[in-house]
Amino acid sequence: MDNKTGDSQDTPPLKGVVVIDLTQIYQGPYATLLMAKAGADVVKIEPINGEPSRLRAKVGRGSSLSMLMLNTNKKGVTLNLKSEEGRRLLMALVKKADVLVENYAPGVMDRLGVGWEVLKEVNDRLIYASGTGYGLSGPDRDRLAMDLTIQATSGAMSITGMPDGPPLRAGPAIADFLGGIHLYGAITTALYRREKTNKGALVEVAMQDCLYPTLASNLTFCYNSDGKVPPRVGNRHGGLALAPYNVYRTNDGYVAMVCVKEEHWRNLVKAMAAPELLEDERFATNVLRVRNLAEVDRVVEAWTSSLSKDEIASLAQLHKVPCAPVRDLTEVMNDPHMHQRGMLERFDDEDLGEVVLPNSPLNFHGTPRIKSTAMPGLGEHNDEIYSQWLGLAQDELDALKTKGVI
Amino acid sequence: MDNKTGDSQDTPPLKGVVVIDLTQIYQGPYATLLMAKAGADVVKIEPINGEPSRLRAKVGRGSSLSMLMLNTNKKGVTLNLKSEEGRRLLMALVKKADVLVENYAPGVMDRLGVGWEVLKEVNDRLIYASGTGYGLSGPDRDRLAMDLTIQATSGAMSITGMPDGPPLRAGPAIADFLGGIHLYGAITTALYRREKTNKGALVEVAMQDCLYPTLASNLTFCYNSDGKVPPRVGNRHGGLALAPYNVYRTNDGYVAMVCVKEEHWRNLVKAMAAPELLEDERFATNVLRVRNLAEVDRVVEAWTSSLSKDEIASLAQLHKVPCAPVRDLTEVMNDPHMHQRGMLERFDDEDLGEVVLPNSPLNFHGTPRIKSTAMPGLGEHNDEIYSQWLGLAQDELDALKTKGVI
Repeated sequence: MDNKTGDSQDTPPLKGVVVIDLTQIYQGPYATLLMAKAGADVVKIEPINGEPSRLRAKVGRGSSLSMLMLNTNKKGVTLNLKSEEGRRLLMALVKKADVLVENYAPGVMDRLGVGWEVLKEVNDRLIYASGTGYGLSGPDRDRLAMDLTIQATSGAMSITGMPDGPPLRAGPAIADFLGGIHLYGAITTALYRREKTNKGALVEVAMQDCLYPTLASNLTFCYNSDGKVPPRVGNRHGGLALAPYNVYRTNDGYVAMVCVKEEHWRNLVKAMAAPELLEDERFATNVLRVRNLAEVDRVVEAWTSSLSKDEIASLAQLHKVPCAPVRDLTEVMNDPHMHQRGMLERFDDEDLGEVVLPNSPLNFHGTPRIKSTAMPGLGEHNDEIYSQWLGLAQDELDALKTKGVI
Repeated sequence: MDNKTGDSQDTPPLKGVVVIDLTQIYQGPYATLLMAKAGADVVKIEPINGEPSRLRAKVGRGSSLSMLMLNTNKKGVTLNLKSEEGRRLLMALVKKADVLVENYAPGVMDRLGVGWEVLKEVNDRLIYASGTGYGLSGPDRDRLAMDLTIQATSGAMSITGMPDGPPLRAGPAIADFLGGIHLYGAITTALYRREKTNKGALVEVAMQDCLYPTLASNLTFCYNSDGKVPPRVGNRHGGLALAPYNVYRTNDGYVAMVCVKEEHWRNLVKAMAAPELLEDERFATNVLRVRNLAEVDRVVEAWTSSLSKDEIASLAQLHKVPCAPVRDLTEVMNDPHMHQRGMLERFDDEDLGEVVLPNSPLNFHGTPRIKSTAMPGLGEHNDEIYSQWLGLAQDELDALKTKGVI
């Protein structure tokens, strides 16, 4: 097969892919951000008053750090899908698009008259991607879903927290972002298939489904206990089957440390400069260390608490023990490693000033990373998109604005 | 453009894609599981003694529930990459492959003499995918990485836990699985580009990078506090800016509940059949409710603790309040909704008996889901793959086994 397009390795992988982005908050916008960062042309379509993230933002043009993090490298237009004319405009845009992404509640797009069944007749090459909490089918389809409630119903909370405390949510928005990146994967998979079939598809991802595989270890502990659900274990090994395995206090914070193999324990003893521990019968094997869990943790923490978290992590690394400092958000934002790799960049935003923005975690070697460009203001590209894509004249645009259609 | 292959919507999207799977534990195997579930031909290559997950398994052929969850629908061969002959065999396999996926530590494949630089010369259409903790570049590249330590260093732990407790890890293996699904997305993106360029690529995903976007809300709270890191908040809203927002006790467990809009609060008051709360000045707006956070939580919990978690969730849903029961793992495994959707299926495993297995969270409508097939035993498909792909005769296979190459 010949190279048909003249594209090469330094061409962004999704160059030329046109995306209609009807998404909001986190799940959908993360999927379309990664598409934009892979070179796709993403047009974010918002209601006349802006999507919920913009409405919640406190400053200027509706920026907030999270809104900016997820909406750089996109163009922005407004469109009122509750008006007949608005829906006609959407269909005209869809004719020019490869992908439409939305994360409204199931049925919303259908009720507006612009669901998959309608749009596939407008453009049979369209990939229509839906991100929801519970999916487009099944008895729980219409349950209201947010990151917090999906963390509850998926089982994630039940295994997070201390043994004597309540179930806890993970601080990161794991349901939203696992949902978003799975949605991205579904879209790119469908794009690949379209190269073979020349036909679009409806692809769908439910946040709850995405969390299930992440429970693998704990589901295994549960299976191994004949279906009895093991208790929450804080930072210890979920099956209480490895030691040391915990978060330990240092003189300035905490480190996380885990000994998976016997070798790691021997290495740790070297790092601690405490060879007598190798002779200690209580600690001779992992099985014995697990039996003497509290004592192991006490001995390790006596060492870690004498130094700083970075000192402990460095000594552990030197001796080949898996260990890392528990870092706070300002440390992470300024991480030299991620900045050097181009995963993080400093960006001067009109409203927010200098902030740190993530790039895409997807690295295509040989293809330069796409730098962040400003987040679109509300309707900023109305004139450009509606005139260039649909050939509307200025007076038509003005009329649409007056009527509240765009 | 015509349909060149005769493929249609009921053809699995990755049909015909051949994957060499050198992965282990969770991150890599999840990426290749999703490929297999999308129709790719995945050949899992393990060291002669099996990958670490198999070694840790307690029963029969090296099954454990987690090993099975991640390795259905794959073929399995063994190969000793530390032998010259083993490396030659890998190169011969790579000639037949579209994708190679590995999640060894950075540099391992290069040191073995079968890294990207070598393999791209063997097959210039090869997509080589690397999943690691910190990436293939940067000063932290060689730090030992496991799910626990990445949760620490990425900042995720620092925002999980109670205000008066230590930083906590999220129970689910979020670093491994976010890494795995991003890796899947990178691979499918590169497959799409290859249709244009006819050239392979090196794609790379670091777990730490994948966690950064999930911190969006908390990074925003941090920015809004002039860079001061807000304290951990347990199950409350990360910025302490919404109420009600918490996990509440019921008479049989817990529910998670959140009022994002004023309307949700009014709906909740209806669900509680407590109209007097609408007159209560302390609760008149979200700002006031946040000011009276403890009182709000007390009032809500007085109600929730009078009923079961499913009763509370049903009443909340009826009145359109985002709420969900905190479910334990056995409840989740038996979730009728996910079973009905085909996300979960019951599977009779030779070693483990009847277990519940996940399907792929990626749904391609119109394309039947691929049912789980047995996980390969160690080297189960050696004869098939090495003879069918490479044309080796039985005596050659026997010799390779004797020499410990396969």
